[in-house]
Amino acid sequence: MKVIRDPLWNNIRLEPLALALIDTPPFQRLRYVRQLGLAFLVYPGASHSRFEHALGTYHLARRALGLLEERGDLEGLDDALSTDVRIAALLHDIGHYPFSHALEEIGALHHEEVARPLINSGPIGEILRAALGPDAPERIVQLIRGHSSNPLQGLISGSLDLDKIEYLRRDALMCGVPYGEIDADRLLNSLVLVRPAPSTPHAAPSLSIGVREKGLSAVESLLFAKYQMYRNVYWHHAVRSATAMYKRLVSDALDAGALSASQLAGFTDEGLLLGLESKAASPLLKALRERRLFKRAIEIPAAELPADAGEWIADDWRRTIKAEDALAKELGLASGELLLDYPAKTEMLGLDLPVLRRGGHVEQLTRQTSDGSINLPKLSEDLYRSARWLRAFTARPAKLTPQRLLQLL
Amino acid sequence: MKVIRDPLWNNIRLEPLALALIDTPPFQRLRYVRQLGLAFLVYPGASHSRFEHALGTYHLARRALGLLEERGDLEGLDDALSTDVRIAALLHDIGHYPFSHALEEIGALHHEEVARPLINSGPIGEILRAALGPDAPERIVQLIRGHSSNPLQGLISGSLDLDKIEYLRRDALMCGVPYGEIDADRLLNSLVLVRPAPSTPHAAPSLSIGVREKGLSAVESLLFAKYQMYRNVYWHHAVRSATAMYKRLVSDALDAGALSASQLAGFTDEGLLLGLESKAASPLLKALRERRLFKRAIEIPAAELPADAGEWIADDWRRTIKAEDALAKELGLASGELLLDYPAKTEMLGLDLPVLRRGGHVEQLTRQTSDGSINLPKLSEDLYRSARWLRAFTARPAKLTPQRLLQLL
Amino acid sequence: MKVIRDPLWNNIRLEPLALALIDTPPFQRLRYVRQLGLAFLVYPGASHSRFEHALGTYHLARRALGLLEERGDLEGLDDALSTDVRIAALLHDIGHYPFSHALEEIGALHHEEVARPLINSGPIGEILRAALGPDAPERIVQLIRGHSSNPLQGLISGSLDLDKIEYLRRDALMCGVPYGEIDADRLLNSLVLVRPAPSTPHAAPSLSIGVREKGLSAVESLLFAKYQMYRNVYWHHAVRSATAMYKRLVSDALDAGALSASQLAGFTDEGLLLGLESKAASPLLKALRERRLFKRAIEIPAAELPADAGEWIADDWRRTIKAEDALAKELGLASGELLLDYPAKTEMLGLDLPVLRRGGHVEQLTRQTSDGSINLPKLSEDLYRSARWLRAFTARPAKLTPQRLLQLL
Amino acid sequence: MKVIRDPLWNNIRLEPLALALIDTPPFQRLRYVRQLGLAFLVYPGASHSRFEHALGTYHLARRALGLLEERGDLEGLDDALSTDVRIAALLHDIGHYPFSHALEEIGALHHEEVARPLINSGPIGEILRAALGPDAPERIVQLIRGHSSNPLQGLISGSLDLDKIEYLRRDALMCGVPYGEIDADRLLNSLVLVRPAPSTPHAAPSLSIGVREKGLSAVESLLFAKYQMYRNVYWHHAVRSATAMYKRLVSDALDAGALSASQLAGFTDEGLLLGLESKAASPLLKALRERRLFKRAIEIPAAELPADAGEWIADDWRRTIKAEDALAKELGLASGELLLDYPAKTEMLGLDLPVLRRGGHVEQLTRQTSDGSINLPKLSEDLYRSARWLRAFTARPAKLTPQRLLQLL
Repeated sequence: MKVIRDPLWNNIRLEPLALALIDTPPFQRLRYVRQLGLAFLVYPGASHSRFEHALGTYHLARRALGLLEERGDLEGLDDALSTDVRIAALLHDIGHYPFSHALEEIGALHHEEVARPLINSGPIGEILRAALGPDAPERIVQLIRGHSSNPLQGLISGSLDLDKIEYLRRDALMCGVPYGEIDADRLLNSLVLVRPAPSTPHAAPSLSIGVREKGLSAVESLLFAKYQMYRNVYWHHAVRSATAMYKRLVSDALDAGALSASQLAGFTDEGLLLGLESKAASPLLKALRERRLFKRAIEIPAAELPADAGEWIADDWRRTIKAEDALAKELGLASGELLLDYPAKTEMLGLDLPVLRRGGHVEQLTRQTSDGSINLPKLSEDLYRSARWLRAFTARPAKLTPQRLLQLL
Repeated sequence: MKVIRDPLWNNIRLEPLALALIDTPPFQRLRYVRQLGLAFLVYPGASHSRFEHALGTYHLARRALGLLEERGDLEGLDDALSTDVRIAALLHDIGHYPFSHALEEIGALHHEEVARPLINSGPIGEILRAALGPDAPERIVQLIRGHSSNPLQGLISGSLDLDKIEYLRRDALMCGVPYGEIDADRLLNSLVLVRPAPSTPHAAPSLSIGVREKGLSAVESLLFAKYQMYRNVYWHHAVRSATAMYKRLVSDALDAGALSASQLAGFTDEGLLLGLESKAASPLLKALRERRLFKRAIEIPAAELPADAGEWIADDWRRTIKAEDALAKELGLASGELLLDYPAKTEMLGLDLPVLRRGGHVEQLTRQTSDGSINLPKLSEDLYRSARWLRAFTARPAKLTPQRLLQLL
Repeated sequence: MKVIRDPLWNNIRLEPLALALIDTPPFQRLRYVRQLGLAFLVYPGASHSRFEHALGTYHLARRALGLLEERGDLEGLDDALSTDVRIAALLHDIGHYPFSHALEEIGALHHEEVARPLINSGPIGEILRAALGPDAPERIVQLIRGHSSNPLQGLISGSLDLDKIEYLRRDALMCGVPYGEIDADRLLNSLVLVRPAPSTPHAAPSLSIGVREKGLSAVESLLFAKYQMYRNVYWHHAVRSATAMYKRLVSDALDAGALSASQLAGFTDEGLLLGLESKAASPLLKALRERRLFKRAIEIPAAELPADAGEWIADDWRRTIKAEDALAKELGLASGELLLDYPAKTEMLGLDLPVLRRGGHVEQLTRQTSDGSINLPKLSEDLYRSARWLRAFTARPAKLTPQRLLQLL
Repeated sequence: MKVIRDPLWNNIRLEPLALALIDTPPFQRLRYVRQLGLAFLVYPGASHSRFEHALGTYHLARRALGLLEERGDLEGLDDALSTDVRIAALLHDIGHYPFSHALEEIGALHHEEVARPLINSGPIGEILRAALGPDAPERIVQLIRGHSSNPLQGLISGSLDLDKIEYLRRDALMCGVPYGEIDADRLLNSLVLVRPAPSTPHAAPSLSIGVREKGLSAVESLLFAKYQMYRNVYWHHAVRSATAMYKRLVSDALDAGALSASQLAGFTDEGLLLGLESKAASPLLKALRERRLFKRAIEIPAAELPADAGEWIADDWRRTIKAEDALAKELGLASGELLLDYPAKTEMLGLDLPVLRRGGHVEQLTRQTSDGSINLPKLSEDLYRSARWLRAFTARPAKLTPQRLLQLL
């Protein structure tokens, strides 16, 4: 076992197979892809990369599997199922574009799709096939996409996946904010392999990862942490401004042919920007590099918008650019000097997960109604809405009324 | 400046007046009064005392006042107002009974009432009068009771008082739970002296402590932390069981004349129990000392009880004892072998505080309705209800139906 | 597995046997024996008890054994050897007197001797015999005394025992000083079962606990931490003053017949002092309770004393009292108003332990001479001497010259 | 005051002048220069940059000055002296080359020299002159170089400078090692403005920064921390290997004319390497990017080398390259496949600083001989020697005897 030091988990032990995968060029690229994209321009400590996060997720997988094993939950399961989970944890972010999630919002492939060829072919595919059999890469891909029949699937993708625990705690640590505190140890301890409640629609007949009732307050801590991180970091107005600038400048470079979409996933953060500086310099790029971020011209909370209004801003990139440029023109700004932003609608915390009650029966959390505890799925939805804002950023001060913005939606 | 080390705040600097007060017997008694009463029987690390908490609260008062001063908020205010606040922070818990809050639930005086003579007379009174004038003790008492006209009153007693920030963080640290994370620094930084919103009913015309809008997410962190600490520690079923045992055994000793109410506030934790062991040994006391805690015979969440049902369990101690003994008899238990528990109804987080909006105007937080952020006062109420349970504890396993318990209410 | 929360290690998992032992009265007494004796009068946070420390040491034993197992070091060893080690870790401090080590300096039995009857008889003995066989109590006692032939003996008593790692980290945390940082995880990771170097005199032919070469810098961190804790906490002048007061007042109570030596080990901290307050009140006791600590009249570093001078102050309690009273008389002080203090000569860090070199051979650390790393045993001796001071404390300011003190030695 | 979050110090408050300086391109470049050069290839968390470190050093300057002010030490001193110190703390690393210190070892200018034009001219010079007068830039430069007559000079450059406290703690945090614990708060608290001891040779007659006697154990913690960081991180064999590879590949690029020395200070880390990849690709560069680090062919501790032997390896870069290539040839390796490394001889902790003794007189620490505490300057020298090793790294396994290496020296 090789040991790697880590600011969050202190000592991460790595099995030989994990080490071999880490030593491949696609994995080493992750050292140069910042975990939080442009957030380091607002939180200077956020210089951590997908590389550390991947190691940490692998580490949590080892711990979670160790605890399940200690309690006998894995009895009768093939060891290979556990190995697949550890490796999927390690490789789950292999497909990230430069600056992580931002480019997915301009219509680039989701990173889990990008991952497939990187895992199936090249050095990673070779190593996996040699160690775990010819269909190992595809098994790992299915786990990462959340489509595996592995009963441990829930550790990799789902309401309580280890990825989430890892990034919330690491991002909070690196940003220097006291918001990522999760009762991680208790959460891991209360994971359990259960058969879903019989009444669950489409319930798979097989085993899946759930949580013991006594772990529910740790689940609450996860929800609070996630909400606070969205409100204070991920959806911080200045972080969103930098992200909007980056999305638009890359989009413009793609449109201008200075860059091709298929190359994107091969770049590092700095590799992409330095390349664009020489091949497709632009005022947006220069402003980003000198940290002259666009300012809010207006912002409106999601809760004050008509239901479903404006969802196209997150979903339909072409329409968004057109709207941006039309508004810019009205305000006397150049194309690219006004940017719209409305973070993609996702669940704050999907909470459709089985709970093993003290009495021994299993319930889906979403069913929970009247047992006196807080309604977590509902609270989750409320918190989510309150953290989401529609914003317009401009290069120079500009006057934009709420009425004008709402007309657009 | 004398420096004292502290596990939570690291270095606490003390002015000479604070040192003199600390060196009095009433203050030294606090070293022997555990901050969390009987919780150390469930969370072994919770052996910290009111003494450390008092130093920590003083420390936060110094920091808060320093920040207000740095920003010019204290300009024009008499220095003596700040000194009073620092000293009130130091002395606010001087009147605690052994094991802190528990005995207030059996009808003993509230600790803020007990504090008055301890501050007005004896060595503390003398020191205060000599240093701060003849009416200083009474000024301090008024601050502690929340009745002072000092514009800085809100730092000592109110929605965002420093006491709360201190105990949530210290209790979480000592219990070893990751639930007390508060964005303390940002909270202190966003405190501001404002004139209340004009529409506030009974609004004092004078200045008071409020919070800047950008501090609202730190206020949220305070609410989440408080809820989680109540759910996991303060109202943990085993902590409540030990507390119920302690309340009943002290009450029985008072009734038997082995103890007089007026003495109570002079005892230390161990002084009280060791005294009772020699003068009024009882099965309850023996069970508590050997940590044989009564078990839950039944528990019902507050949310499932009729509105206002059972509030007398927290309020009317005589009636509670009678009900306990009647139920015990029905179940074949001796008097004192069945205990009822329903934590006193208090607000989770009173949030009636002025917010200084970005635009410069002041709003009461309770008024906040439609600006898209979460409705904190409402969320506070929901969280509070979900953490509160009605319970019956028994010395031996006993069968108690919900119906029977509900009849009683 | 029951989980207990802890401020230092967060979650401690306990096997049923450990739980049963914890639930006995002799073990519960440890809740009321402070880990650092009177140090809480100087470091207010140091209110932690032997109870938490015992749980923590058990926790480290589980981790160390788990790591040895993972690497195959325990192959061929009987599981019972590991169980004995875990239980010995849990029980190693069961025999502590009130306020921990202080009374050993006045000639009371060493706590490891007191432990024997507590482990052999009573509820602990019963539980151990039922679970682990008739000679289990004695096996545990031998481990605690360092006389066992169990190859894992070194985990319980020796240069790198787990006890030391635990108390250094916990004491530093609770005192609020940044001095107990040990690379604990690396240290545990580099423990190894080896056969001692052939040249070791009296080398047991059997296996014993050693350390891998790559763990040496973690050993250094242990040495630095221990030195810093002695210099700043354990041998802090005010801590030593309070300890000297306590030793003398207990000694006087024993001499006066108000207390008998055989009872001592049954008391809790507060039980002892509260008992003496009613039966043997004294100015010393009153001063200690009101925290009026004796002040230094003089202090001289060990390095400036003739070799071996004054060692009797730590060893010969009768002679010490006589010398104290003679000096007191000379200075116009009453008996008991002058106290001498010279901490017992122990090794800072015994470092006679086998090191498994990178090449695969084993060397005793003490032999280490010329490989370029620092000479740890020698550094240890130097650090130790520099932290040790001879002191005289007095109730009131008094003039004592170095010459007069040196004459005495 | 603007507040920036930080993983180490949590909240850093910035005055407007500091903000203006940070917003210049030369300062923004520091975001892209890693604090620990290539160490992130060994300690993945070490992705922090000179930018965060500069903010942190400024933060410590504010705290240290605040404490000196609170104690009245700054009375009579012009405020401008303090401002200069805060700004010098912020700008002290402005001249760092890509990957920080490494290139200084190949004869490039020391970063404090590179800083001069960056501070004197351009946007930084303009801002400084406008805010602090025409000679402000030069005053700042003198502080950074350690040549200022400002009595607070010692805070910026010297035995106890704030830079050191900052980097030891930050580097340890980010590497995930428990070695950087310094009693920072106590150290800052014990700083004092003194007149040097009269017997000090060349003693400046003026005031300078010293330390109070009670701060000496905090100075010890600084020494231990620095030693441990050198032994485990800065001089870790794999970190040194990566550094040696980087030095040689840049040197080769300079020799080949693919790069000019004068440009170096303008590059970011990735900017330099990506530029070289397109203009001067080399096997060394490719190996570094794919993290195929050269392995140790041999290593010898400094303590086993003849006095002063081999110092040219750190000092005379031309001779070093020649020796590397000669050895490579002997072993059948290509030029650039064998690298020599002997870290530059510097003091572990220069400790020539004034100590204000309890009695009120001032002594130089180096004079300290017989007061019983450890001889820190001597210990510092011992620790330093033990952490320093002469090493040869090779691209492929190669057999190199100690004798052959020693002949060379």
